[in-house]
Amino acid sequence: MVNIVKIGGNVIDNPEKLASFLSDFAKIKGPKILIHGGGKIATKIAKDLGIETKMVEGRRITDEAMRDVVTMVYGGLVNKQIVAKLQANHCNAIGLTGADGKSILAQKRPVKTIDYGFVGDILEVNALFIKSLLDADIVPVFAPLTFDMNGDMLNTNADTQASAVATGLSSLLPTNLVYCFEKKGVLSDPENEDSVISELNPANYESFKNQGVIYEGMIPKLDNAFSSLRNGVSQVTICHADELKNALETGNAGTKITL
Amino acid sequence: MVNIVKIGGNVIDNPEKLASFLSDFAKIKGPKILIHGGGKIATKIAKDLGIETKMVEGRRITDEAMRDVVTMVYGGLVNKQIVAKLQANHCNAIGLTGADGKSILAQKRPVKTIDYGFVGDILEVNALFIKSLLDADIVPVFAPLTFDMNGDMLNTNADTQASAVATGLSSLLPTNLVYCFEKKGVLSDPENEDSVISELNPANYESFKNQGVIYEGMIPKLDNAFSSLRNGVSQVTICHADELKNALETGNAGTKITL
Repeated sequence: MVNIVKIGGNVIDNPEKLASFLSDFAKIKGPKILIHGGGKIATKIAKDLGIETKMVEGRRITDEAMRDVVTMVYGGLVNKQIVAKLQANHCNAIGLTGADGKSILAQKRPVKTIDYGFVGDILEVNALFIKSLLDADIVPVFAPLTFDMNGDMLNTNADTQASAVATGLSSLLPTNLVYCFEKKGVLSDPENEDSVISELNPANYESFKNQGVIYEGMIPKLDNAFSSLRNGVSQVTICHADELKNALETGNAGTKITL
Repeated sequence: MVNIVKIGGNVIDNPEKLASFLSDFAKIKGPKILIHGGGKIATKIAKDLGIETKMVEGRRITDEAMRDVVTMVYGGLVNKQIVAKLQANHCNAIGLTGADGKSILAQKRPVKTIDYGFVGDILEVNALFIKSLLDADIVPVFAPLTFDMNGDMLNTNADTQASAVATGLSSLLPTNLVYCFEKKGVLSDPENEDSVISELNPANYESFKNQGVIYEGMIPKLDNAFSSLRNGVSQVTICHADELKNALETGNAGTKITL
């Protein structure tokens, strides 16, 4: 079983929380992969560089200047800081974007009503290459970036990328996908941190959506989770970053997604 | 024979020259490695971010803020742009810093009279890991960055890093080291671009230095070149970025360094 762990932006933005999470991640036994989000630092650096964040219908547009910022911040600063810290925890990490070793090929999102700019929709995961790293006891650490064959780096959603990596690898070995974030799981009451829904299946997911209990940002995350299970991933869990060890060792943490 | 090619900052700063160089590099047959310099873009971005470039006795100091800038610019922006462009040239590149796969371990330069800050002196090259990539037909592309085991990324001179990678690999296979830059080779008259010294050995190198013909920035580059030959590298050439193909195919380009 390979553990594919996604860590969200809020933890990335907090050095103490990140250090604690990486120490826990380093201790996971067996093959593992980390996929990290971006955090707010790209927005801050873009602002400091005088690059405007463009939104259309509430969604961020990655123009060329912003693409260069996320390439340097996610692919350079955040990714290499994580790799160096994992090495200090005796975890032999390698930082990757989709372009490295052709590991995740994408295409620039086709323009329909909105031109999202340099945003990548994933076409193919190079599972054999990723597995060759795991076989050599190397731990891939992915920044949320992919590439196309025209020489362009592309900004990519980290949740989607984690799902694609897990799904791609599941043809070669059993995969366990864990989304870690700043909440204890999927909550039935956003005001109550302890209202964790212990298990979500397609039936109660629909019901929670219809009641408006699950909404906004959780919906694409959960759609990714269900889609991963339908495409070969063995297990999917959504839990707090502090509960990674617990989720992996006891299976009793966060929200389990099942079919 | 593995070709280890270093490309300097002046070419990195010019998109057309860089594209032409990468197209030539992609066409080299057999195992190969690219090591790139930083270019002036890190200085520009640091300035735009309000980070002051600190110099002591004419040498740049890498404080923490500047280290983060070079980590993101060299390790993210420059490195990933090169990797994506090599992929578009059907060259399966992987972008690396020393931290990735523990490929180049360094230590923070000890403070004697000057504290250079987060600057790495290389301790060890993981030749087996680098060779495993070459064996898989993957082309390592190194940014001029290393790491220490305390979790820190370190700024490293690209010429020195190229020499260390070539020397480290030479215990496993024959190595050819080519330094590409914006001049046709080592010149006997800096005003005359065609005054290329075709061969430099320790004897005429001393003599050129004593005459003041070779000076300043060329001296550490040439010291690296001679040290590489003394430590197992088979061939070292210094040539124009446009002449890479010629240097590799005919051996009649630039300045050959011999013992």
